[in-house]
Amino acid sequence: MRASQFFLSTLKEAPSDAEVISHKLMMRAGLIKRLAGGIYTWMPLGLRALRKVEAIVREEMNRAGAIEVLMPAVQPAELWQESGRWDFYGPELLRFKDRHDRDFVVGPTHEEVITDVVRRDLRSYRQLPKHFYQVQTKFRDEIRPRFGVMRGREFVMKDGYSFHSSFEDLQREYRNMYDTYHRIFNRLGLKFRAVAADTGSIGGTGSHEFHVIAETGEDDIAYCPDSDYAANVELAEALAPAAPRPAASAALTKVHTPGVKTIDELAAFLKLPATATVKAIVVDGDEAAGNKPVLLLLRGDHELNEVKAQKVAGVKNPLTFAAPADILAAFGANAGSLGPVGFAGRVVMDRTVAAMADFVTGANEDDHHYTGVNIGRDFPEAEVADLRNVVAGDPSPDGKGTLEICRGIEVGHIFQLRTKYAEALNCKFLNEQGKEQIMEMGCYGIGVSRILGAAIEQNNDARGIIWPDAMAPFQVAIVPMGYAKSEAVRTAADALYAELQAAGIDAFLDDRDERPGSLLADNELIGTPHRVVIGDRGLKEGVVEYQGRRDAEATKLAVADVAATVIAKLKG
Amino acid sequence: MRASQFFLSTLKEAPSDAEVISHKLMMRAGLIKRLAGGIYTWMPLGLRALRKVEAIVREEMNRAGAIEVLMPAVQPAELWQESGRWDFYGPELLRFKDRHDRDFVVGPTHEEVITDVVRRDLRSYRQLPKHFYQVQTKFRDEIRPRFGVMRGREFVMKDGYSFHSSFEDLQREYRNMYDTYHRIFNRLGLKFRAVAADTGSIGGTGSHEFHVIAETGEDDIAYCPDSDYAANVELAEALAPAAPRPAASAALTKVHTPGVKTIDELAAFLKLPATATVKAIVVDGDEAAGNKPVLLLLRGDHELNEVKAQKVAGVKNPLTFAAPADILAAFGANAGSLGPVGFAGRVVMDRTVAAMADFVTGANEDDHHYTGVNIGRDFPEAEVADLRNVVAGDPSPDGKGTLEICRGIEVGHIFQLRTKYAEALNCKFLNEQGKEQIMEMGCYGIGVSRILGAAIEQNNDARGIIWPDAMAPFQVAIVPMGYAKSEAVRTAADALYAELQAAGIDAFLDDRDERPGSLLADNELIGTPHRVVIGDRGLKEGVVEYQGRRDAEATKLAVADVAATVIAKLKG
Repeated sequence: MRASQFFLSTLKEAPSDAEVISHKLMMRAGLIKRLAGGIYTWMPLGLRALRKVEAIVREEMNRAGAIEVLMPAVQPAELWQESGRWDFYGPELLRFKDRHDRDFVVGPTHEEVITDVVRRDLRSYRQLPKHFYQVQTKFRDEIRPRFGVMRGREFVMKDGYSFHSSFEDLQREYRNMYDTYHRIFNRLGLKFRAVAADTGSIGGTGSHEFHVIAETGEDDIAYCPDSDYAANVELAEALAPAAPRPAASAALTKVHTPGVKTIDELAAFLKLPATATVKAIVVDGDEAAGNKPVLLLLRGDHELNEVKAQKVAGVKNPLTFAAPADILAAFGANAGSLGPVGFAGRVVMDRTVAAMADFVTGANEDDHHYTGVNIGRDFPEAEVADLRNVVAGDPSPDGKGTLEICRGIEVGHIFQLRTKYAEALNCKFLNEQGKEQIMEMGCYGIGVSRILGAAIEQNNDARGIIWPDAMAPFQVAIVPMGYAKSEAVRTAADALYAELQAAGIDAFLDDRDERPGSLLADNELIGTPHRVVIGDRGLKEGVVEYQGRRDAEATKLAVADVAATVIAKLKG
Repeated sequence: MRASQFFLSTLKEAPSDAEVISHKLMMRAGLIKRLAGGIYTWMPLGLRALRKVEAIVREEMNRAGAIEVLMPAVQPAELWQESGRWDFYGPELLRFKDRHDRDFVVGPTHEEVITDVVRRDLRSYRQLPKHFYQVQTKFRDEIRPRFGVMRGREFVMKDGYSFHSSFEDLQREYRNMYDTYHRIFNRLGLKFRAVAADTGSIGGTGSHEFHVIAETGEDDIAYCPDSDYAANVELAEALAPAAPRPAASAALTKVHTPGVKTIDELAAFLKLPATATVKAIVVDGDEAAGNKPVLLLLRGDHELNEVKAQKVAGVKNPLTFAAPADILAAFGANAGSLGPVGFAGRVVMDRTVAAMADFVTGANEDDHHYTGVNIGRDFPEAEVADLRNVVAGDPSPDGKGTLEICRGIEVGHIFQLRTKYAEALNCKFLNEQGKEQIMEMGCYGIGVSRILGAAIEQNNDARGIIWPDAMAPFQVAIVPMGYAKSEAVRTAADALYAELQAAGIDAFLDDRDERPGSLLADNELIGTPHRVVIGDRGLKEGVVEYQGRRDAEATKLAVADVAATVIAKLKG
């Protein structure tokens, strides 16, 4: 593509509502234009990248045996009433009445529609399994759309739905999609992790999220660099320390700690590391446990994991922290000075605490702590549970190394829905015995438009976007210095452009009559991964300058070699 | 694609709500599934055809220099208020409020959105012209959706919008699109006509519709088989007869015609052809003409064209037919017995009437007519105008032959919008003199999903669809008789499939374990243009059977030749 026949529209400044770097760069590079909050027009440059992502997604879905369909955006309310989501879904579901006063939704997801197709068209186990997918524009009325295409209201998704005659077959397809998603994100050139995830509101059991690793991600992920283990921090198991609990060596000593409320203050006051302290968190017990408070103990530097605490038998559901008055009544002291010593109620220790000795806790007396606290000696052995978030350096639950923590942006999600929707919508087949049976179902989503934002969050520098080769709007930028003025430059640029095009490479010939500095800056901003600068001075020596978008410096290449070199880099 | 890895779902009967053949066949062949009135899921087979049409549209739009974008379906009301269409558009515009109670529409068209992008991004004449297009899903809340995808509520359109610094440049691009649309519909293998059209509600001046010719079309089109002239019947000019008016030869004679009201009754009663009669139609004159009735004269077999009659000076706007009481007062007789003889008011004759002699008209006396009526002798020479619809056999207005009448399905439309939207939305540029100027604008639509219905209306038979090669979901059907049972058949079928695939041909290998009759019927129904049947009997002689979907009989081809023959047919 020649710039003169294209439409570039770069900006010096990002608009003030752009908070994250990908949103800023997408606006500055002119990939998208804002139409309304969370609603964007895909401009020619952005659309090229979007289409490349779509094409890779389609190729791999087809290769995996899924069959493409295209379902309507507008869906009748009846199906949502049948599945129960009409009442369950919140205001992010856009509802409207048509001119005949019938209720419709603009679909944020298509479980109901595809299940309706399948229940009418598939009758026999011989027709199963089937996996249908689509690449389609969806609408979700986010209360606070932001981050550009990463949390927009109108967005492009790949959503696939598979139907099976048995749970075993669903698991086979789930694994197939797990592998397919790896192929897709690898081909896109993204650093990512498949993460064991909670199933969220979409329902069902068994799911993985696929996260693009980026410092600016919204989710904390624990992963093992030495294996493929990864999980949301909320879900990652914190193993018990390998070393057994040391023997007690210090005497229990009450210390006056005036005004000391937090672990940081305590550690500073006692000149001890936070790892030598234990914090006490009081939550309400459930009715069966007489509504009595439960004392949870965590090492001072650890964070309570509420999902895990919730799962402790006898703890009130949903988890609630004990009211100050209840704490005072139960412990005789206020939060900040609590501990297990002398407490007659129920105590649950985190696994790490269970392996500690000679630690510090509150003394159940305001402004006092104990040092030299030891389990079994100073308070009874208590229940042990995994109560905390994992931290970097924790052993990986798969036993293959230690965990790291990173942040991720969710770009894919696979679920074993099982029979949730099939049951609600009465989606049955005749099994080999001729009996009616509810289908097993999986669903598999990729946030196609979101991938572009995530890719930029992961790949950018002060000068702009750095596209991975596979999704770059253009693979190579040819930047002539003086295309209009120098015939030699023009001839060399046109020849290289023709050669790259003939090799099937998406080249961008920037033939605009702009200042050299502006041409170079624009081409860096829009992130084309390979660049060839052609100038009169170099041509006199028979060379042009090649620079990869991540390279610190340009390399001189003989005019005769440049096409082959660039082609080798892209196809190699 | 192998049938076993695909999803075919053919029906014996079309659903009862399918009125036209394309809708019936699309449902029976399983191209689409109904979700709600006018809202369909594109099933795998239908989506393949849709994608092929989209691809050809994109290739030709890109070749013509248009640049692809993707605009949002959801649009803020403000833009529609600014253009004035918020009030102007009827209930087919789907409006809704988002969760913050702001007004939005689901866009049936995108003039406002693209003009908003352009007014913010394009400032100089140097950036013009620009033509942006998209292939996008639209929603129009039709009061009575019908004919399947031909008049659906959710549908896929290609809509393009061009911006220019002068009317001349708009005209150049309009011609470019006129030619591009010809290339597109030719490549799709459709019989079509570009038709000079009224501009309809989208506004502006100068437009052509592109109609696929089909007996079942909703529009009447007059065209000249010997030139590229074509127009909606309402707009085609009826030329004056070439031959001059003959001299009067019959005497004016009053005839008693009891109970004769219509031209058919009159012609039967007098044993004369309708072409020898003249009918009298009385319309209201406008205020400037004193509201007096105007008598329009047409040859008995011709139809009044109300658009043309409307344009006669002095005729009331909009056209209204005179009330019975006013007719009686002015003529002394009732409709069915009216004529110009003795009428003192204004008379306008159609061009054909002006060249007639010795004709029959009403006598302005109930149940009486005159025969032998002659202009100038029996009533004064009157004004002459083009008042009628053209009929088959009329001379073509371009002077290149005679007109034929056919029916068409509108699948494309190009408009010169001029400054209608640019003015309303204040879309300006700086011209060469550095002065602000409103842009000139064109818009160009193709009903992408409608094309499939139109193609089937044009190409079908009792056995099903007959796809043009270019948009067929599969180009070649390989139908083995006994794929599961015969190793020879399986081997030959697999080999042919591999050979066609290697040649880049979309082959469909129907490896389903069904009865031969059912396999053959399905493959005819779904309309694959080329079919190769492979059976044990033929293989023993070294032959397979080739049959084009329109061929009356199959042809035996040597196994060794079949791939090359099919490839030649498709690529030839």
